[in-house]
Amino acid sequence: MGISIRDIFLSPEKYLDKEITVEGWIKTARASKNFGFIELTDGTVFKPIQIVYGKDLENFGEIDKYTISSSLKVQGKLVQSPGKNQSFEIQASKIEAESVSDASYPLQKKRHTMEYLRTIAHLRPRSNTFNAVFRVRSLIAYAIHKFFQEKGFVYVHAPIITASDAEGAGEMFQVTTIDMDKLLHSGADKVDYSMDFFNKKTSLTVSGQLEAEAFALAFKNIYTFGPTFRAENSNTQRHAAEFWMIEPEIAFADLNVNMDIAEEMLKYIITYVLENAPNELEFFNNFIDKNLLERLHNVVDNEFARITYTEAIEILEKADREFKYPVKWGIDLQTEHERYITEEVYKKPVFVTNYPKEIKAFYMYENEDKKTVAAMDLLVPGVGEIIGGSQREHRIEILEDKMKNMGMEMDTYNWYLDLRRYGSVVHSGYGLGFERAVMYITGMKNIRDVIPFPRTVGNAEF
Amino acid sequence: MGISIRDIFLSPEKYLDKEITVEGWIKTARASKNFGFIELTDGTVFKPIQIVYGKDLENFGEIDKYTISSSLKVQGKLVQSPGKNQSFEIQASKIEAESVSDASYPLQKKRHTMEYLRTIAHLRPRSNTFNAVFRVRSLIAYAIHKFFQEKGFVYVHAPIITASDAEGAGEMFQVTTIDMDKLLHSGADKVDYSMDFFNKKTSLTVSGQLEAEAFALAFKNIYTFGPTFRAENSNTQRHAAEFWMIEPEIAFADLNVNMDIAEEMLKYIITYVLENAPNELEFFNNFIDKNLLERLHNVVDNEFARITYTEAIEILEKADREFKYPVKWGIDLQTEHERYITEEVYKKPVFVTNYPKEIKAFYMYENEDKKTVAAMDLLVPGVGEIIGGSQREHRIEILEDKMKNMGMEMDTYNWYLDLRRYGSVVHSGYGLGFERAVMYITGMKNIRDVIPFPRTVGNAEF
Repeated sequence: MGISIRDIFLSPEKYLDKEITVEGWIKTARASKNFGFIELTDGTVFKPIQIVYGKDLENFGEIDKYTISSSLKVQGKLVQSPGKNQSFEIQASKIEAESVSDASYPLQKKRHTMEYLRTIAHLRPRSNTFNAVFRVRSLIAYAIHKFFQEKGFVYVHAPIITASDAEGAGEMFQVTTIDMDKLLHSGADKVDYSMDFFNKKTSLTVSGQLEAEAFALAFKNIYTFGPTFRAENSNTQRHAAEFWMIEPEIAFADLNVNMDIAEEMLKYIITYVLENAPNELEFFNNFIDKNLLERLHNVVDNEFARITYTEAIEILEKADREFKYPVKWGIDLQTEHERYITEEVYKKPVFVTNYPKEIKAFYMYENEDKKTVAAMDLLVPGVGEIIGGSQREHRIEILEDKMKNMGMEMDTYNWYLDLRRYGSVVHSGYGLGFERAVMYITGMKNIRDVIPFPRTVGNAEF
Repeated sequence: MGISIRDIFLSPEKYLDKEITVEGWIKTARASKNFGFIELTDGTVFKPIQIVYGKDLENFGEIDKYTISSSLKVQGKLVQSPGKNQSFEIQASKIEAESVSDASYPLQKKRHTMEYLRTIAHLRPRSNTFNAVFRVRSLIAYAIHKFFQEKGFVYVHAPIITASDAEGAGEMFQVTTIDMDKLLHSGADKVDYSMDFFNKKTSLTVSGQLEAEAFALAFKNIYTFGPTFRAENSNTQRHAAEFWMIEPEIAFADLNVNMDIAEEMLKYIITYVLENAPNELEFFNNFIDKNLLERLHNVVDNEFARITYTEAIEILEKADREFKYPVKWGIDLQTEHERYITEEVYKKPVFVTNYPKEIKAFYMYENEDKKTVAAMDLLVPGVGEIIGGSQREHRIEILEDKMKNMGMEMDTYNWYLDLRRYGSVVHSGYGLGFERAVMYITGMKNIRDVIPFPRTVGNAEF
């Protein structure tokens, strides 16, 4: 195995003026009568390396027939480059084709639409845009782990298959081993789930939060990071049926601590990507979103604002602006409201806290006013809501009353109530949609373009 | 929020002889006429901290009524401890109960069976064993990410919901939004999957390898780490319906490079846990598996052996030993064979390579002998197979022939063949069952006891 191009860029002094072997794919190539140039990539760094070769190569005449994306093995000397855009190049003494790519290669050097590239999801990571997107996606995922692990948080894998319905967090996919064709001819009146794999009806999880709480009450600081699912028949740029979510949960922590951690995390992730993918971010800033770098630096450099929902409503009511959705205390904030607050009023990220309890989930801590719950949404310029969380209701009487009033099946949640019976403590957590974060940090506009093989209504290719 | 007990143990000099506040749960407590002692844990480290209090506390008479697992807020001075097993203790000036645990708490200080603890999976992480298991599980997950990221591998999320059948890698769960009760009364003869969410029949993935290959041919070095599923009706200690898998895939890499990476990875993970969870490993070594530490050091300190399948068969045929499953060239190795080789012959981890092609998957590289494929299994003492991998068939004619001979649906895999049409290169990869690794490193014997909320036949609780 040759050395990777990443190794060369990481420690060029190790290889400079030495004979090396690299392997990679042709990104572009041109040749004149006496010289040839190849931009070779092996995918380990965003920028390809330039290969220069001359007539001394015995297969000189062959080389410029190698098609784009052909795989090559190149021997040669690494030298400082005279050109201004690449600092190093390889003067080849030998170039062998490992495999000449078929001329039908669908990713020829020209502009392709995002829609078209989605149809070749197995090849699009070879394009500049998607190479950058998926490397940054990987770096964001790692930054999240690094952030929490360095703070001593325990990573918990919440279950994917679940028999609970997570109380309306979203439409669910059913998981079954019952033969549906046989079912048609069974003559039964109702499906007999005692015949199913788990002896009951099961679905794909929409959130690992409740299970996360159980672990927070054992480890204090935990986080989940796993796939979650929504079977919603919505065809938008921001929704996928399968996406990943990060759900930290922290014991002995109220809503303020929760906001502190969320703010620190978001700044940490962005800083990590700024440091570890400068070429990719520059590319996004040039070709995808001209305000990207400014926006990211703005997040890192500013203390996030913190206002209550009631204050947010007052701001919106005073706004010199017509909203599509009318504003009054009690409404759920719409994207237009959220963006007005974060983009035009504060011009930076804003936490909005203490929402009316009627519009929030059953497990949120009821404030003293009995009208609001200790919820928080983080709004960011360019997107709107990116994180949602709350302090959890840890007082068993209040929680039990609320669940009964909502007609929830108490048996299913008895274990969840146990967490309040045995050593209940103030605790808080939040959810970050991973793809939302990737979209935010890359400037990509469609969730289908930040997921390797996206699953949406009618689409489960590859 | 008080400081965490982990903070105290990480930098005691910062807090020594100072007034601090900690919060946590009572693990054990005892009191005499004039003094009381509480072992307090907040879950951030394995060992609890000792709280000492005296009659000067106004609620002295109350404190020893607080039940196990009650949550407390303790103010006091951190001092060097006179006892030999704890280096620090807190002399309390104030102890408040945040919540007194109900006396029915199921985890009283006594031995519980593993079976019983599985029925309280929401509480068992508070026990010593499971606190250690799930912290180590988290550390192993992080070590895997750290290992690959430091090498520049790109983390890829392979899709969970899939329309392909992964060619018999295992029984699959179906994923659907079709209302099965309605189906019974539809009068239809066959299920109409154009009505399903993805307009086709879909299942939960059994492996992300094929998708991983697509990304390796763009980034050279990639890995997946996500949940995979098997709907197999087997009730063993080693099989779960839902488990996590790591699948690295490396371009420009043959089977030898593949083995190098697998060996380096396994040593890295174990070293990381030895360094970061010494108390937990000592606990496992004392209470779960007396040979654990010796075995782990043995893995880290030795170069793994590498033998071919044919050599393995010769060794087994010569063995002075009766096997339940008779040995001859062509058989699939059974656990008894694997353990004999790794435990009795080599006494260390052994890679077995180049298996008969008939017993291995379609995508494996056919060797020159045309009888074997470039597969590898890593066998480790105490377990048997822990990693399985191969060099992939990158020659399109051979791969296509094989797939046709097996009667595979070529349309479904056309994208996979594209990877051989456009810049095909030698590439290799392997799969590590995450829970197998956790079992190996903790000494735990049942896969149900290394998964937060395990899913097995008939069991999807919580």
